[in-house]
Amino acid sequence: MATLGDIGVSAFINILSAFAFLLAFALLRIQPVNDRVYFPKWYISGGRSSPRRSANFVGKFVNLNVKTYLTFLNWMPQAMRMSESEIISHAGLDSAVFLRIYILGLKIFVPMAVLALLILIPVNVSSGTLYFLRKELVLSDIDKLSISNVRPKSIRFFVHIGLEYLFTFWTCYMLYKEYDYVASMRLQFLTSQHRRAEQFTVVVRNIPHVSGRSISDSVDHFFKTNHPDHYLCHQAVYNANKFAKLVRKRDRLQNWLDYNLLKFERHPDKKPTMKNGFLGLWGTKVDSIEYYKKQIQEFEKSMALERQKILKDTKSILPVAFVSFDSRWAAAVCAQTQQSRNPTLWLTNWAPEPRDVYWRNLAIPFVSLSIRKLVISLSVFALVFFYMIPIAFVQSLANLEGLERVAPFLRPVVELKFIKSFLQGFLPGLALKIFLYILPAVLMIMSKIEGHIALSTLERKTSVKYYYFMLVNVFLGSIVTGTAFQQLHSFIHQSPTEIPRTIGVSIPTKATFFITYIMVDGWAGIAGEILRLKRLVIFHLKNMFLVKTERDRIKATDPGSVDFPETLPSLQLYFLLGIVYAVITPILLPFILVFFAFAYLVYRHQIINVYNQRYESAAAFWPQVHSRIVASLLISQLLLMGLLSTKKAANSTPLLVVLPILTLSFHKFCKYRFEPAFRKYPLEEAMAKDTMERTAEPDLNMKSYLADAYLHPIFRSFEEEPPFEEEQELVEVRVDKQQTRIATPITSELSSPSPPPYVHHTESPPQYSYYQSSPPQYVYSSNSPPRYVYHSTSPPHYAYLNEDH
Amino acid sequence: MATLGDIGVSAFINILSAFAFLLAFALLRIQPVNDRVYFPKWYISGGRSSPRRSANFVGKFVNLNVKTYLTFLNWMPQAMRMSESEIISHAGLDSAVFLRIYILGLKIFVPMAVLALLILIPVNVSSGTLYFLRKELVLSDIDKLSISNVRPKSIRFFVHIGLEYLFTFWTCYMLYKEYDYVASMRLQFLTSQHRRAEQFTVVVRNIPHVSGRSISDSVDHFFKTNHPDHYLCHQAVYNANKFAKLVRKRDRLQNWLDYNLLKFERHPDKKPTMKNGFLGLWGTKVDSIEYYKKQIQEFEKSMALERQKILKDTKSILPVAFVSFDSRWAAAVCAQTQQSRNPTLWLTNWAPEPRDVYWRNLAIPFVSLSIRKLVISLSVFALVFFYMIPIAFVQSLANLEGLERVAPFLRPVVELKFIKSFLQGFLPGLALKIFLYILPAVLMIMSKIEGHIALSTLERKTSVKYYYFMLVNVFLGSIVTGTAFQQLHSFIHQSPTEIPRTIGVSIPTKATFFITYIMVDGWAGIAGEILRLKRLVIFHLKNMFLVKTERDRIKATDPGSVDFPETLPSLQLYFLLGIVYAVITPILLPFILVFFAFAYLVYRHQIINVYNQRYESAAAFWPQVHSRIVASLLISQLLLMGLLSTKKAANSTPLLVVLPILTLSFHKFCKYRFEPAFRKYPLEEAMAKDTMERTAEPDLNMKSYLADAYLHPIFRSFEEEPPFEEEQELVEVRVDKQQTRIATPITSELSSPSPPPYVHHTESPPQYSYYQSSPPQYVYSSNSPPRYVYHSTSPPHYAYLNEDH
Repeated sequence: MATLGDIGVSAFINILSAFAFLLAFALLRIQPVNDRVYFPKWYISGGRSSPRRSANFVGKFVNLNVKTYLTFLNWMPQAMRMSESEIISHAGLDSAVFLRIYILGLKIFVPMAVLALLILIPVNVSSGTLYFLRKELVLSDIDKLSISNVRPKSIRFFVHIGLEYLFTFWTCYMLYKEYDYVASMRLQFLTSQHRRAEQFTVVVRNIPHVSGRSISDSVDHFFKTNHPDHYLCHQAVYNANKFAKLVRKRDRLQNWLDYNLLKFERHPDKKPTMKNGFLGLWGTKVDSIEYYKKQIQEFEKSMALERQKILKDTKSILPVAFVSFDSRWAAAVCAQTQQSRNPTLWLTNWAPEPRDVYWRNLAIPFVSLSIRKLVISLSVFALVFFYMIPIAFVQSLANLEGLERVAPFLRPVVELKFIKSFLQGFLPGLALKIFLYILPAVLMIMSKIEGHIALSTLERKTSVKYYYFMLVNVFLGSIVTGTAFQQLHSFIHQSPTEIPRTIGVSIPTKATFFITYIMVDGWAGIAGEILRLKRLVIFHLKNMFLVKTERDRIKATDPGSVDFPETLPSLQLYFLLGIVYAVITPILLPFILVFFAFAYLVYRHQIINVYNQRYESAAAFWPQVHSRIVASLLISQLLLMGLLSTKKAANSTPLLVVLPILTLSFHKFCKYRFEPAFRKYPLEEAMAKDTMERTAEPDLNMKSYLADAYLHPIFRSFEEEPPFEEEQELVEVRVDKQQTRIATPITSELSSPSPPPYVHHTESPPQYSYYQSSPPQYVYSSNSPPRYVYHSTSPPHYAYLNEDH
Repeated sequence: MATLGDIGVSAFINILSAFAFLLAFALLRIQPVNDRVYFPKWYISGGRSSPRRSANFVGKFVNLNVKTYLTFLNWMPQAMRMSESEIISHAGLDSAVFLRIYILGLKIFVPMAVLALLILIPVNVSSGTLYFLRKELVLSDIDKLSISNVRPKSIRFFVHIGLEYLFTFWTCYMLYKEYDYVASMRLQFLTSQHRRAEQFTVVVRNIPHVSGRSISDSVDHFFKTNHPDHYLCHQAVYNANKFAKLVRKRDRLQNWLDYNLLKFERHPDKKPTMKNGFLGLWGTKVDSIEYYKKQIQEFEKSMALERQKILKDTKSILPVAFVSFDSRWAAAVCAQTQQSRNPTLWLTNWAPEPRDVYWRNLAIPFVSLSIRKLVISLSVFALVFFYMIPIAFVQSLANLEGLERVAPFLRPVVELKFIKSFLQGFLPGLALKIFLYILPAVLMIMSKIEGHIALSTLERKTSVKYYYFMLVNVFLGSIVTGTAFQQLHSFIHQSPTEIPRTIGVSIPTKATFFITYIMVDGWAGIAGEILRLKRLVIFHLKNMFLVKTERDRIKATDPGSVDFPETLPSLQLYFLLGIVYAVITPILLPFILVFFAFAYLVYRHQIINVYNQRYESAAAFWPQVHSRIVASLLISQLLLMGLLSTKKAANSTPLLVVLPILTLSFHKFCKYRFEPAFRKYPLEEAMAKDTMERTAEPDLNMKSYLADAYLHPIFRSFEEEPPFEEEQELVEVRVDKQQTRIATPITSELSSPSPPPYVHHTESPPQYSYYQSSPPQYVYSSNSPPRYVYHSTSPPHYAYLNEDH
């Protein structure tokens, strides 16, 4: 085990690599050529349209201003400059609340660290049982500062118990204040939002098939009967998954076409050719440009056919609809009540905002949802506890002998001693590393199979799964030796009171491991996040091979977004570590504090300059964060009880029993007090907003406002095409809208002094419509300005892009 | 342990005592003097007004018709004569569904018993390990028929596992069908009900205090703002608990007065006197009649003062109100949605029906509810696991030495050998018996402290608590030796996989005990239920000392009702026993079948002739019954797994692991599919009924209909008194009602051929108004006929009587 010196060395290395990342970032970000990678948010929000300096040709790509190199940490104060309300209007409430989690971490752990270091370290050091032991038995210097150093049966344990009480109360107090604040932030955000389609809309699932009546007629009839005073209209949902697949394929072909066109443009003397067989590996040689153009044409034909089929076939209308009402009150009523006698029919729920809808899952038959859920729960359980089995299997294959058998020509290379030893050390680990790398994607696919219909829900569900994985395999897995499966086996065969003891006993000995973990994952990892190396490389590759126009360049920059499925669980793990070790090995706390402070700065910078959230859930993830921290408190209390019981502190341990009960009551209270703010929409609020709006704009035509808010993307992409009768209606509606659009002003300049909160600004809307020069498909409203302000910032065919994330 | 012969003897004794009870019942019920005890329901529903035969003086009291003595079991076919729909209209849906539980038991267990006896008994008997053991080791003959007789590692265990699967599927299938049927019965019952105040009313709790505004104003303002189209009116709730106490005391005095008046009437020569000191033991001698009259007068004065105080003091208005809407739709909406921004304010819920309201708990401040719930949960846990501690303490006091010390004059008697040995055997058990006797009352008090506001909820919560007690102390307590506390201790320190083994192993050996238990508690106990010995004695005592008029006599008969808090848990225990023993010791099943069949007959008879339900919850207890049976399935599967693992049936036990998962999924599915029918009111239903009613009675004045439906009982009792201004308003409303009453026809004759479902018939309303000859207080609407049909059948001041139950 590591001594204090070892920790110092590790800290030095990690700080060094963190600084290296920061330095690289500082150098890369001021190069104009990288401007789009490090400041994409400003391009999207219209704050910038081209890199800042472009004096001479070299200056276009490389920053020649020496002065800027000297102030390489100046992004930090810059990141701090924006106020919270500005962040909300700039990047949304999700991002603002996400940053608050780091602040919450600091608020909780700074006083805890000060108190623990001041009180516990002297108590632990002066106890000194470990001094009596032989030098070899002393596990590490760190242990002298920890609870391990206190003599069994010592009266000093009362100090630890007292501090555990104090820390619990302090954490609960901060959590309560934060929950209160976030809940009111959320309500205020929802109130201050301008009129939005999802406020008036409810998604209805499991609409029953009535013979001789279409789904649309059923919906109309049902809601006209049961909500006669408020029902306005509805939007049918089509099963366009097959069509979406075609679109994706066509996009890929378009990319190849662009690549070849660009190649031809740069080298006009050489016409690009390719083989038309499998993967371009064999077959006859053809002209690439012609080939792809023909392919795309064919695809477009089959897409048109498919589209016609979807629109004509009543079977492609799903038993799902977006039902809109004339007031927020009515929508709130409909979303919160049971509609039908049969509780499995006509299920109503709040509609996600249009860009948040995951259209693909709307096609899942409702009956299969519970089975899917069961299957996925079992799979997650298996994944968490048995994931080592397939990996061990792959590892057993991926050894040198296997490699030599598959690729005998490599033998001479592999047999070299240096390479052999390297590969032997490297190959078995590779399978595990690949698994851990693709794990979030696997969990996301699992969540998608579960059938949630909003991106935000998908991300939240994925983050829950990831948290369980981390808890079992990182936290417990590091403390207790053996694989998760072995742990599970031994836990099942142990008495329930034995488990906290087993874990509790080995907790203090693992402090050094977790300190190293925090430095590697938390310090250096976060510094890596700001560098965006992967995206930088991808951007330059795309820029080189695919980018023809300015629009393509914007498409090539993927700003990304806060990766909730990965960041939330790891944040929650840090809270767990801090809370568990606060009384056991308080020396761990400063390392966590550094993580929280540094990560806060980095994410603040990223949110302001880089990320572009794909949806806005108004901090819907908060209840999850809250309950995980409360769970951490419970875990820490149980483990401390287990640890103390092995210390024979029989007269003090029972004092701790009250604490979990109090913590659970606190959790229940918070859930009851605040959670409804995240799940329901109070009628009082709805009515107040309705009344306000009605007096402000008495002649508003809601019906036309809502008409195509939840239009299936399939209609969007073909809006310009004339031959279908649906188009005619749409055009009519559009005309309506033109008249009522005055009601929804679009702020068209970022420089407007106080922008209304959460409105994405757009400098010149047509700039973001794709393929303006290519065929009219996919031109989203290029000749009718976007009606929803956010349409201009999100790619119009987001629905098709969903599964690439 | 008992052999088959012992079981036979026990069965003989129990059958004999059951027959003795039945014979006694048959003899007593045909005596005219007992007619009111055995047929009170017919008196209440107006089917009878006096005993049938009254030829001569003796015939008034004793049945002289010899023929009727010969057919002493003829109540059984009589009980079967009513159809289910008749029972629903005669006794309500609760009673009808309660009877269905017994039928469900028969449906589940008859095929199970046939199959288990035919297949398992041969399999078990022919295995014959026990034959190899020495005679002394053989526990009982019963064990030869049980799974204990099968050799370890035998392949025959596959038969048991197969049957466990089959039985689980069969039980789930029957449960599904039953849940489906009961849910539709409930909806149909609610639909077919005539207009009732609770359909339009919502109870609102935690109304915030706004300074300078009364609660009533706040309610009016809030609902006028947020439900502008549908809000009608509301009823404030007064804190009248102190007043209710005065009323109870006054009633007791009235009883004494009646007793003395009667005494004087019977012996006009002797004026009854009493001492006016403590308990009438000392003080000066006074005329009893005068004394009580004066006391009552004084009480009435202070009651009038108290009432005035309540009405004038705004502080006595509680932050609770019954808010009524103009349609069922609006009430359903309000009950199911969140009203206020702050989710702890303006909490809405369906109002219980007026006679179901437990007024006392409305005064509990809402904030204390969660604390109360926590405290009560802990108390129930303590009661279930540690109840032996105080009893052992009392037992240690209540021994002979203690008795002699307290009452030395008893020494000569106690020292007699016969009495001494009797007392030594009797006294320690007495404390336990008293405890078990008062347990349901204690649990009911606990539920009341929890703060539920409806009688039906109180009874359901009590039954849950009682079930836990039975499960731990009767089921587990009989199987595992030691007190519940010792079990808890050993379970906590055992591995979770060890617990089912510990219990599973001893299950087969306890079959004889449970067979005896079923015969004593199930057979003889049920026969005792039909005898109603306690109520018979009380009736005759009251009849002798208190009854002056015919009305008093009706008051003296307490018909009672199905005692859900006690019957439901014991029913659930029988299901548990049957399901657990079905594959282990199938010989137990026939005993359970006899119980279900016999109890079904008895309760059918009682429901038709005796019980008078105090409220109608429309089978709200069904989800509970369902989940307990599912829990029994789970318990049986776990225990079978534990049992088999001790039998070293390692290759067959894993087959069972799938079963609990399937059972749990089934439970989840049922909960999701059917439970909303018991918790929510679908808007479709509400709207349909609203529309129907609106077309049938377009001019209905809902406001006057609802005006005093939830009038606090305090107003009811004083309706005739003029001097208060509130009265004036009431009278006005009453006048309104007189005009609109045509809309709510009262069926005034039981003999009407097909009575509308669930309407209590009343022959002559004034007959049930109390104290017509005494002062006008408590005369409930004696000169205005009851507007709600059920008012005439329930005592008007039920709210004051609540806590006597």
